[in-house]
Amino acid sequence: MPMTSWVQVAKDSDFTIYNLPFGIFQSKRLSPRIGIAIGDKIVDLSVLHEEGFFTELSQLPHDVFLKDALNDFIALGKSVTRKVREIVQGLLREENESLKEHQCRGKALVNLKEATMLMPVKVGDYTDFYSSMEHATNVGMMFRDPENALLPNWKHMPVGYHGRASSIIPSGIPIHRPKGQYKDPNMENPDFGPSRRLDFELELAFITGRPTKMGESISTKDAEDFIFGFVLFNDWSARDIQAWEYVPLGPFLGKNFASSISPWVVPIEALEPFRVNGPKQEPEVLPYLQCIKDHAFDIHLEVFIQPDGLKPTKVCTSNFKFMYWNIAQQLAHHTVNGCNINVGDMMASGTISGLTQDSYGSMLELAWKGTKPLQLEEGGERKFINDGDTVIMKGYAEKGGVRVGFGEVASKVLSAKE
Amino acid sequence: MPMTSWVQVAKDSDFTIYNLPFGIFQSKRLSPRIGIAIGDKIVDLSVLHEEGFFTELSQLPHDVFLKDALNDFIALGKSVTRKVREIVQGLLREENESLKEHQCRGKALVNLKEATMLMPVKVGDYTDFYSSMEHATNVGMMFRDPENALLPNWKHMPVGYHGRASSIIPSGIPIHRPKGQYKDPNMENPDFGPSRRLDFELELAFITGRPTKMGESISTKDAEDFIFGFVLFNDWSARDIQAWEYVPLGPFLGKNFASSISPWVVPIEALEPFRVNGPKQEPEVLPYLQCIKDHAFDIHLEVFIQPDGLKPTKVCTSNFKFMYWNIAQQLAHHTVNGCNINVGDMMASGTISGLTQDSYGSMLELAWKGTKPLQLEEGGERKFINDGDTVIMKGYAEKGGVRVGFGEVASKVLSAKE
Repeated sequence: MPMTSWVQVAKDSDFTIYNLPFGIFQSKRLSPRIGIAIGDKIVDLSVLHEEGFFTELSQLPHDVFLKDALNDFIALGKSVTRKVREIVQGLLREENESLKEHQCRGKALVNLKEATMLMPVKVGDYTDFYSSMEHATNVGMMFRDPENALLPNWKHMPVGYHGRASSIIPSGIPIHRPKGQYKDPNMENPDFGPSRRLDFELELAFITGRPTKMGESISTKDAEDFIFGFVLFNDWSARDIQAWEYVPLGPFLGKNFASSISPWVVPIEALEPFRVNGPKQEPEVLPYLQCIKDHAFDIHLEVFIQPDGLKPTKVCTSNFKFMYWNIAQQLAHHTVNGCNINVGDMMASGTISGLTQDSYGSMLELAWKGTKPLQLEEGGERKFINDGDTVIMKGYAEKGGVRVGFGEVASKVLSAKE
Repeated sequence: MPMTSWVQVAKDSDFTIYNLPFGIFQSKRLSPRIGIAIGDKIVDLSVLHEEGFFTELSQLPHDVFLKDALNDFIALGKSVTRKVREIVQGLLREENESLKEHQCRGKALVNLKEATMLMPVKVGDYTDFYSSMEHATNVGMMFRDPENALLPNWKHMPVGYHGRASSIIPSGIPIHRPKGQYKDPNMENPDFGPSRRLDFELELAFITGRPTKMGESISTKDAEDFIFGFVLFNDWSARDIQAWEYVPLGPFLGKNFASSISPWVVPIEALEPFRVNGPKQEPEVLPYLQCIKDHAFDIHLEVFIQPDGLKPTKVCTSNFKFMYWNIAQQLAHHTVNGCNINVGDMMASGTISGLTQDSYGSMLELAWKGTKPLQLEEGGERKFINDGDTVIMKGYAEKGGVRVGFGEVASKVLSAKE
C-alpha cells in the first residue's frame, strides 16, 4: 500500500511523504527555523513542537527548532532525528487527522514559495573527494597523459582534499566571476583578470551527523551511522586559475570563491530504497576500505544552463551510482589516520561523470576542454559558463512509485567585480 | 625609557609588558576565560572588567571575557582589542598602583603554572601556505627535479592549500602516530600501517580578526588590518602517507591528523618593533601582490626534540624573516578571487627554512630524506620523529632591550592506536 498525504503532492514533486528533507527557512514574518518539505509546503517544526506533537521525545529542548542551522538538532543523534521524521510522516499521512484537523494547521504549513531557504548547516570542515573514475580519467587525459590517465594511487584510495567552508552558499545566491592568475601554455608570463574558463562540477555531498575524537577511526561498517543526509553540490571551478596554481598542493583559488548547495537535506534513511551495488573495484582494496554491504545509491542527476532571459538547456544527465568510491569508503579513509570529524562537516563526492559524453559532470569534460562547444536550445553555444548564465542542478531517485528528490541548486553567474 | 612592570618578569621571559598576548585559560576553580600573559602570571580580564577597569569601553558586553574562545572578543574590532591591551599595559606599569594596590589583585593575577591553556580561537577555515623559498626548493630537489626544484608558479604567487581545522590543538596535547597507506618506490603495492616517517613542520600562523563578504578582496595595503595576531604552528606531517596521496590534489591524510599551536596569541601590534625588509622578489610580482611597506618580521625560531625522559636537543634555528611571501601578500592572494574570510580563520606560513642546513624547518630537510640522521645530545639519532619524542617549538623577537615571545608549542608523540 503506497503512502499518501493529505497535503497535496504533485506527481513529479521531489518532496513526497517518503522523503521529508530537513532545511532552514525564514519568511517575512518568520525568523530562521527548521522545517520539513512536503509538496509545495514546509512543515514548521517549531509549531508542531509548541503544540505538543513531540511530547514523546522528552529530551527535546524547547527552542530546538528555532535555529538558523541544523547542527544542534542533528547533534541530538539519529534516535531523535529519525523519530522526529517518523512523527511528521505519521502526521502527514492521508488517514491521520491530528494535524490535518488541528487549529494550528494553517500556522504549521508554510508555502514554499513564501519562504527563503538558508544554509542548512554551519559547515565545520569541507572535504571534496574525486571519486568518479570517469571524471578522473577524463581530466587525466586532458591535462596529463592520455595513456596513463588515472594516477597510480587512484584505485587504491578515495583521493580527496580539503576545501573552503566559508564560501559554501545555498541555492539562489548569485556568484561573481572570480578573478585570478592564469598562464596559458602560449603565455610567457602569468596574467591577471576575470577567469575565462568558469565551470560547474556536478556533485552530491553528505553531511556528518556524529562527531569522533582525534585518534578515532570509522569503519566502513559503521560509516553510515555518522551520515545525516545529502545535498546537491555545485563545486564551482575556474579552470584557468586552477590549472596554473594546483601543482603541487592542489586546488585553492580555482575553487574556494564559491560552492553552491541545494538547501534541503535528504536524510540517508530516505535513500534506503535506492541502494544499489557500486562498480566492481579492481585491484582489491586494502582491508580498511572493504565493505560488507552496498553503499551506492541510484540517484538520477541533471544539469541545465539557462542564459539570461532564455530557456534552460539540459547539458548533462548522470547518476550517483556511477561513483567508484562510495560514501562509507570515503569516511573510513578520511578518519583512518585519526582525523576527527564534527557534526555538520560536508563531504562532497567529486564530479559525477558517467561513461557517455552526455553524462559528464563538468563543462571541461562536456565540451572537452573547449574543443566541442555545446549548442544551447535557443541558440548560442558554450565552452564554459558565461556571465548571466544560471546553472541548475537537479537530482531524484525513483523506484516502484516512490520518488525522493533533492529539489535544485540554481545559481546565476554575475560579471567579475570591478 | 624602557617600560617595566610591578609584576616580576624574568629577563628571558617571552611575556614582557611589551607583549601581552591573549589566550584562553581555565583552572581547577576557574571556568574558561580570556587572559593576558605577563611573566609567569595571567591577568584574568574578566576580573578587571568586573572591577570596572574597562568602563571607558562602554560597548563591552558584561561576559565578553568569560568565553572559551577569543572569536567574539576579536570580532569587536581592533579599536576595542587594542584599547583593552593598552589599558592592561597601563595597569601593569611599574608606576601604576591602581591594580597593584587594588583588593582584587590576588584574584586578577593567576599563576601560569596553575592554569591549563585551551585553544585560543575556534578556527573557521585553516589555510597553509608554502611561502619559504628554501623549503620549497629543498622539497622540490628531494621529490621532483633537483635541476628545476621550484615549480613555475612558485615565484608568481604565494602557493597555498586548505587544511583541516578540526584537528588543530593547543600545546600540551599528545598526538597518536597516524596510520595510513604508503607505497615506497620499491613496493609493488601500497601497504597500510603506522607512518614510518612522522615529521614536524616549523611554521607561524596568523589569525584573522575581521571578516569579508564573498566577492570582496583585501589589498596588501589593508591586509594587516585584518590580522589579529600570531601563534607558533607545528604542521605535523606523515611523509610516507603524503608522498603516496598528494598527486594531484595535494596533502590530505598526511597532514590532517593533527596540527599543534602555541596557546598565546601575540597581537600584531606587539611585533611592530621587529618589522623588517623581506627578501627581494624577482621576477616582479603582479600588481595585486605588490607592497608599499615591509611586512616581514624578525622572529627567531627554534625546534627541539626531547626523547622520553631525556634532555631536549635543539635541531633547528630559523627565522620568520626568511619567508619569501609575506602575510599581506598571502591575504591579498587568498581573497583576490572573492573568497570570504571570517574572524578566527588561521593561515599558516608553511615550513620556515633558511639557507643553512641547521635552519631547515622539518626533519625531512634536516636529515635530508633520512640520509643524514641527526645526533641527539644524550645519544641516539633521528631521521624522523619516534614514539615518545616531544617536539618543542619556541619563538621570540628581541631588539633594543624589548623582547616579545610566543612561549612554546610542545607535543608528545604516542604510538599508533590499535
